[in-house]
Amino acid sequence: MDEFMQAALEEARSGLAEGGIPIGAVLVREGKIIGRGRNRRVQNNDPLAHAEIECIRSAGRIGSYEGTTIYTTLMPCYLCGGALVQFGIEKIVVGDSTTFKGCPDFMKDHWINIDERDLPECIQLMEGFIAGNPQLWKEDIGV
Amino acid sequence: MDEFMQAALEEARSGLAEGGIPIGAVLVREGKIIGRGRNRRVQNNDPLAHAEIECIRSAGRIGSYEGTTIYTTLMPCYLCGGALVQFGIEKIVVGDSTTFKGCPDFMKDHWINIDERDLPECIQLMEGFIAGNPQLWKEDIGV
Repeated sequence: MDEFMQAALEEARSGLAEGGIPIGAVLVREGKIIGRGRNRRVQNNDPLAHAEIECIRSAGRIGSYEGTTIYTTLMPCYLCGGALVQFGIEKIVVGDSTTFKGCPDFMKDHWINIDERDLPECIQLMEGFIAGNPQLWKEDIGV
Repeated sequence: MDEFMQAALEEARSGLAEGGIPIGAVLVREGKIIGRGRNRRVQNNDPLAHAEIECIRSAGRIGSYEGTTIYTTLMPCYLCGGALVQFGIEKIVVGDSTTFKGCPDFMKDHWINIDERDLPECIQLMEGFIAGNPQLWKEDIGV
């Protein structure tokens, strides 16, 4: 696992330790992490605090997202995919696209380059969480 | 203009008075406003604080969005359209779909009912803002 996905996974694990939903993300440009975040629905009581949203927020008002790549432990939902499309984030690296289907076709249709890695650490983290917290997981994805 | 769009427009005007981008939204269920928000990119220095995002956030963790309608002064971008799709908000009423194209086809493809009203008050508010603040507007929509 590369250092950026490792950082996203650390965010996810920190979220789990806080009693939250274990999804993490980092935003990278020119080989450096410029934003990082984790799902904080539970911690902040905020239904919009998905990992990618928190990650992009943490980077601040950077203006152009040209040359950015977002690393996320889980395939994005439409909320987060919509953020990537709107702001023009060019590439996404996904740790787990098995547990949650997300919206890869929507992102591809908007010229986002998707690198799906199917990493056991990311898949096992989500599978374990969903098995233990099915209602919280359903709430997070709006089903 | 009905009371809900009036409330969304008040949010937009409050944002303008704060030095922000004048876009407002309210979330309605069973004839009552259950959430309201305005774009706070400038006020909170937060690129994700679009009006619809802030509005849905303010409603809190309501669980199901069944039976909800969001009223917004401006056609949503993909970030906000993605939020509506993901959480299953059923209907959107749009004050201005002239100034900004947004993503109506994406929302329709996901079974969101769109009511476009083309209200002069909403259109003039955005046109005036964009003419005076083109860079801020471009930053907000990621172009």
